[in-house]
Amino acid sequence: MAKAILSSSRPSRDSISSSKNSYLGPYHSTSDDTATMAEVPQWVRNLKPAEPQGSDLLAQERKASNVNVEKLSNFLFTKEALSRRDEILKILKAEPILDKSQDYFLGRVDKWEHALGKAKKVRQLAVKHNWGDLEKRVANDLISEPLPYALHEGMYLVTLRDQGTPAQHEKYLKPAENFEHIGCYAQTELGHGSNVRGLETLAIWNPEDQTFIIHSPHLTSSKWWIGSLGRTANYAAVMAQLIINGKPYGPHPFVVPIRDLKTHQLLPNIYAGDIGPKFGYNTMDNGYLLFNKVKVPHDAMLARFSAVDPKTSKYLKPASPSLIYGTLTWVRSTIVLMSGSTLARGVTIATRYLAVRRQFQDRDAPAGQKGENQTLNYTMVQIRLLPLLASAFALHFTGKGMMSLYEANQRKIKSTSTTGDQKERDPGPEETQSGSDLLSDLHGTSCGLKSLCSTMAAEGLEVCRRAMGGHGYSSFSGVGSWYADYLPTVTWEGDNFMLTQQVARYLLKAARTVIKGQDPNNDTTENLTYFHKRRDVGAAFDILDKDDEIVSAYAWRSAYLTFEALHARDDLKKSWNSLLPAFYQLSRAHSQYLIVKNFYETLQSPSISSELDPATLVLMHKLFRLYALHTLEQESADFFTSSAVTVQQIRLARTKAVMQLLEDIRPHAVRLVDSWSFPDWQLNSSLGRYDGKVYEDMFYRAAELNPLNKRIVDPYPDSPVLFRKEAPEKARL
Amino acid sequence: MAKAILSSSRPSRDSISSSKNSYLGPYHSTSDDTATMAEVPQWVRNLKPAEPQGSDLLAQERKASNVNVEKLSNFLFTKEALSRRDEILKILKAEPILDKSQDYFLGRVDKWEHALGKAKKVRQLAVKHNWGDLEKRVANDLISEPLPYALHEGMYLVTLRDQGTPAQHEKYLKPAENFEHIGCYAQTELGHGSNVRGLETLAIWNPEDQTFIIHSPHLTSSKWWIGSLGRTANYAAVMAQLIINGKPYGPHPFVVPIRDLKTHQLLPNIYAGDIGPKFGYNTMDNGYLLFNKVKVPHDAMLARFSAVDPKTSKYLKPASPSLIYGTLTWVRSTIVLMSGSTLARGVTIATRYLAVRRQFQDRDAPAGQKGENQTLNYTMVQIRLLPLLASAFALHFTGKGMMSLYEANQRKIKSTSTTGDQKERDPGPEETQSGSDLLSDLHGTSCGLKSLCSTMAAEGLEVCRRAMGGHGYSSFSGVGSWYADYLPTVTWEGDNFMLTQQVARYLLKAARTVIKGQDPNNDTTENLTYFHKRRDVGAAFDILDKDDEIVSAYAWRSAYLTFEALHARDDLKKSWNSLLPAFYQLSRAHSQYLIVKNFYETLQSPSISSELDPATLVLMHKLFRLYALHTLEQESADFFTSSAVTVQQIRLARTKAVMQLLEDIRPHAVRLVDSWSFPDWQLNSSLGRYDGKVYEDMFYRAAELNPLNKRIVDPYPDSPVLFRKEAPEKARL
Repeated sequence: MAKAILSSSRPSRDSISSSKNSYLGPYHSTSDDTATMAEVPQWVRNLKPAEPQGSDLLAQERKASNVNVEKLSNFLFTKEALSRRDEILKILKAEPILDKSQDYFLGRVDKWEHALGKAKKVRQLAVKHNWGDLEKRVANDLISEPLPYALHEGMYLVTLRDQGTPAQHEKYLKPAENFEHIGCYAQTELGHGSNVRGLETLAIWNPEDQTFIIHSPHLTSSKWWIGSLGRTANYAAVMAQLIINGKPYGPHPFVVPIRDLKTHQLLPNIYAGDIGPKFGYNTMDNGYLLFNKVKVPHDAMLARFSAVDPKTSKYLKPASPSLIYGTLTWVRSTIVLMSGSTLARGVTIATRYLAVRRQFQDRDAPAGQKGENQTLNYTMVQIRLLPLLASAFALHFTGKGMMSLYEANQRKIKSTSTTGDQKERDPGPEETQSGSDLLSDLHGTSCGLKSLCSTMAAEGLEVCRRAMGGHGYSSFSGVGSWYADYLPTVTWEGDNFMLTQQVARYLLKAARTVIKGQDPNNDTTENLTYFHKRRDVGAAFDILDKDDEIVSAYAWRSAYLTFEALHARDDLKKSWNSLLPAFYQLSRAHSQYLIVKNFYETLQSPSISSELDPATLVLMHKLFRLYALHTLEQESADFFTSSAVTVQQIRLARTKAVMQLLEDIRPHAVRLVDSWSFPDWQLNSSLGRYDGKVYEDMFYRAAELNPLNKRIVDPYPDSPVLFRKEAPEKARL
Repeated sequence: MAKAILSSSRPSRDSISSSKNSYLGPYHSTSDDTATMAEVPQWVRNLKPAEPQGSDLLAQERKASNVNVEKLSNFLFTKEALSRRDEILKILKAEPILDKSQDYFLGRVDKWEHALGKAKKVRQLAVKHNWGDLEKRVANDLISEPLPYALHEGMYLVTLRDQGTPAQHEKYLKPAENFEHIGCYAQTELGHGSNVRGLETLAIWNPEDQTFIIHSPHLTSSKWWIGSLGRTANYAAVMAQLIINGKPYGPHPFVVPIRDLKTHQLLPNIYAGDIGPKFGYNTMDNGYLLFNKVKVPHDAMLARFSAVDPKTSKYLKPASPSLIYGTLTWVRSTIVLMSGSTLARGVTIATRYLAVRRQFQDRDAPAGQKGENQTLNYTMVQIRLLPLLASAFALHFTGKGMMSLYEANQRKIKSTSTTGDQKERDPGPEETQSGSDLLSDLHGTSCGLKSLCSTMAAEGLEVCRRAMGGHGYSSFSGVGSWYADYLPTVTWEGDNFMLTQQVARYLLKAARTVIKGQDPNNDTTENLTYFHKRRDVGAAFDILDKDDEIVSAYAWRSAYLTFEALHARDDLKKSWNSLLPAFYQLSRAHSQYLIVKNFYETLQSPSISSELDPATLVLMHKLFRLYALHTLEQESADFFTSSAVTVQQIRLARTKAVMQLLEDIRPHAVRLVDSWSFPDWQLNSSLGRYDGKVYEDMFYRAAELNPLNKRIVDPYPDSPVLFRKEAPEKARL
């Protein structure tokens, strides 16, 4: 049965803990924590799922489609990346501590412990195999859990490297790179997140002995949410308000030791710990941190861009803030790129499961037809799932477009500017920019796309989970925890709602130049200029027949909303606050335009025609149309109001075009998700198994891995005990 | 500090388990599981949040509004219900095992154990205080966790009572009522959920010895998701396909013992257990169950409505299926009613927190103004939260409307029919109804509203959680687990997508009678008739000025979509499957009409004018308009297409009416959520505290309750151990 098919050996040990000292009252628990689960009786092992088997159904699906999965995978990721991934996967799978079979069962403390063990192992493997950043990212992607060293490597080292002087590199960076210091990046506080300038932690310059006093004046100034701080780190890069002679100079980064390097106990006048469980991300020890007038030396302040002169106590100013945009743009572009595969993972699991799951007969099926219908055949399932499949491709191509734009721009910028301010600060709304216009365009774009794409990925995952009905709710679906762990992305690196103000600010500024008659200097101002000239004439885009006119309709709608918002702000003098919902809508519309445009341009690129076979290419065009027309139909109000399209077009898009596309794409759904090439080990999902053995895997995990089944309860309400002596439960013939 | 303010005593015992035998490798853990957390040093205890204090901010909010909270609470729930609630709350709070302070920290096994302990205690209290169903529901509502006895009381007893004969009551119901048998209701299988007629479990009649053989022919026929079965139950009401002489008679209920009443071990040829962890609902032991030709006596088949004659082996048919609708309608009406307070709970927490949370200054604030803005003042927050506040009232009133309609109809039906089929079966799409037309109208209505209202509540809770930004992600917000536990509601008692077919079926049928020229006999056919007559003339509803015309616009749109769907089905002969998305949209539109109508009618009722003070009544009208206009604006495409409203009206609704309503309602938000009257004990939320001590509570839970902080790690990757000997961590001066 399941076990025989699915696993050659049971996991060596069961880590589930006993609660001998529970406050629930006196009861007897099993004396042996490693007691096996009830033996599965032979008559159960002989059972198979009812026909047809999931494996046969998926085989049929794959046979019925001519999508060339290998070519499409290579186009998405490159052949090199895929074989690198396979090598690393092999290494990871060989490590018992990286086994995932108990992950869904562990409580917070055990889960976190296990994650620390994984982190240590990954570090050891990285050293052993000489992995660079790229390989480490691949390994983490395969493991698919945030691990306790993540912020040490992702933020602490980067901050020291970017903002430290050569002397500071020697003193702080070197031991950190060798994992003698384990660091974290302590910015957010209990009382302040988005508003970095409102941080309360103080760094008071003391000219007498040339030190800084790091101090937390209020409870709300406690650092909070700091990844890797709760239990792991012994050092922190602390963002604190620099005070010289009683005058504040804004937040700056300070390196502060927080735990003893030998005993790992808190250092004097420091209070830190883990902030407790969260909706997800429970493999990470997000922490809190308070300082009671902790003295640090002058070189604790990372001084590459700004510093305090120890002799004069003068503040040495930072140069141009160009690099602010650079770093933030890179981080956000990465989020955009990852949003595609984040969503694709949920779509992969749901598509495979819904091709195996059968329920009801088709109402209009011929009378003689037997057996139930695959749920993927129902249009109500298709219309939830297939547009998300199309979205995954759309997001991936948009992310790739953003990344290459970023890289091109970065090269240009680097040749003209070499300094920058500290990171992690967004310019305020409408704040005057001193950086390059090029980067500010990219900045606006990346803000809007980060907001939209991560929202689409998060919400899309929930749609996938629910499309799977009851079984989607089981942890074994693998989608719930993935969704929960992904959710912080909609808040960090710029809250998805707040960020849209930046986009609106950028677009309003661009529209003002158009009204002043300036010549367009990029795609955004070109679209605005076109709309501005034609606004009274109107437009008539043939969205049903021409792909390029779909893109134009999106551009038109975005321009329309831009000028509407500008009118409200500049002519009607409406308050900024009263316009926030309009700005959100505008940012969303503009970003949807960018996605449609990037998808369209990818399809026009010479590389896609050479790399994909014609049949797959045709399908990619259909996915483009599905994404674009389905989104247009969902957001049709703006398209009407702006006269970009007619009511009749929308009606046809909804009732004909989209429904036809669903029908055309349906037979290829399984192969299309196969092209995303997720190994089963990565998905850790009963429902998303490549081989379709959905029910066997569900049963195996429930019956043979689930530690709750070791407990025999006393079920009666008046019993003084919760558990009986006899355990484990025994199945009998 | 926090602890002193928030809690007079630390929870007596910490139940967190040690993992002495972890598979993570050799390490030293603390030898004392009950070791205290690091002592909080005095300098930390002296800290307060930065000014202004949350408690002052909420006090100001309450002072600035004239909503009469007490009157509004009484109107919502009645005074009697509230004082009954308070009495029960007092009893529950006095029980240490019902303390909630460790709930967010527990892993699955401990969480479930704790829940069983709670269930036993609640049963003991129910006996002691002679609680009826009403009181038990109140207690469960306050505890707010699914408990392991839930399906015994909610489904097993009900099934025996409704479908058993007097002899079966004596044999099975009595011991179950005394908790000598603990039962569950085993319907859903691994391979079949929504399609009850597809269940695979067999009950084969054996005329020779007058028994039934209960048998699971495949792995997919394993019962699955069965609440209370995994560990708790020793009896099950099993839905199985009745087979007599090789002929199938469809699913029928059988009472089957599954565990030994003394040892609680599985009985021979039965294999059962817990199905493992889920996205939520982890305090419940949902189970699986397989039978290997288990013999049960003739009286195991619940025989009130249908039976097998033991002598002739003839099947005795059930009578009218009227009661099917009755039971399902009652269950769905309850879900509609509960959706209001389910959502209100999230809105309460978010509103209080966002009135305490301050971030950034208002961009257009006068130059001299100091301090940050309450986040509740930002329109981008308001437009997410306040329509949900309005929705909570809308859902509550709709639920109350449904319940009284149900009760009125039930009285009528009971006088004409006394028999029925077994429960839990929806008629197939377009299946001919033999029951009363009255009930079929109520059935259609309850299907649509169950689908829409539970979706609104679930999705609204996620919106509330995200509106709280970073801290919303903490378990201490209390919204994440509430959302996760609520989610099954969108799937059970009719999947929210599947159900909409029933609504469409009902509406299409009604529209056909209208086309045939039949006189309208209820509200639905009246609306359809009005639309049918006026469809070429069109409509012009004054949605901006007249409340009743808003209701009419919703009715018009629903009728428009009904006739569109009818045209597609009857004239264009489109397949049922191809119309599912249109049916979903139609059901949603019709249900939104019902919500708007119920809210409107509540406002017109004499009772509301007499019970509420005029100022609060005015506000309720504004909440009605906010719900109706915001929803209309969100769904504006249909309203355009059907010519119910003009583009200009929608634009004004969006930019003026809704924004003005947000401004008008904002000052009353805190008092409005106060009127839902959730005790802090029930909410179990740092962010939703009535007194606004948000940050103190967050800090207290993290620093003083969080068991992870007992572990001192060895942070270095090459270390052979995970943990050091020294524990707990000690803060030093």
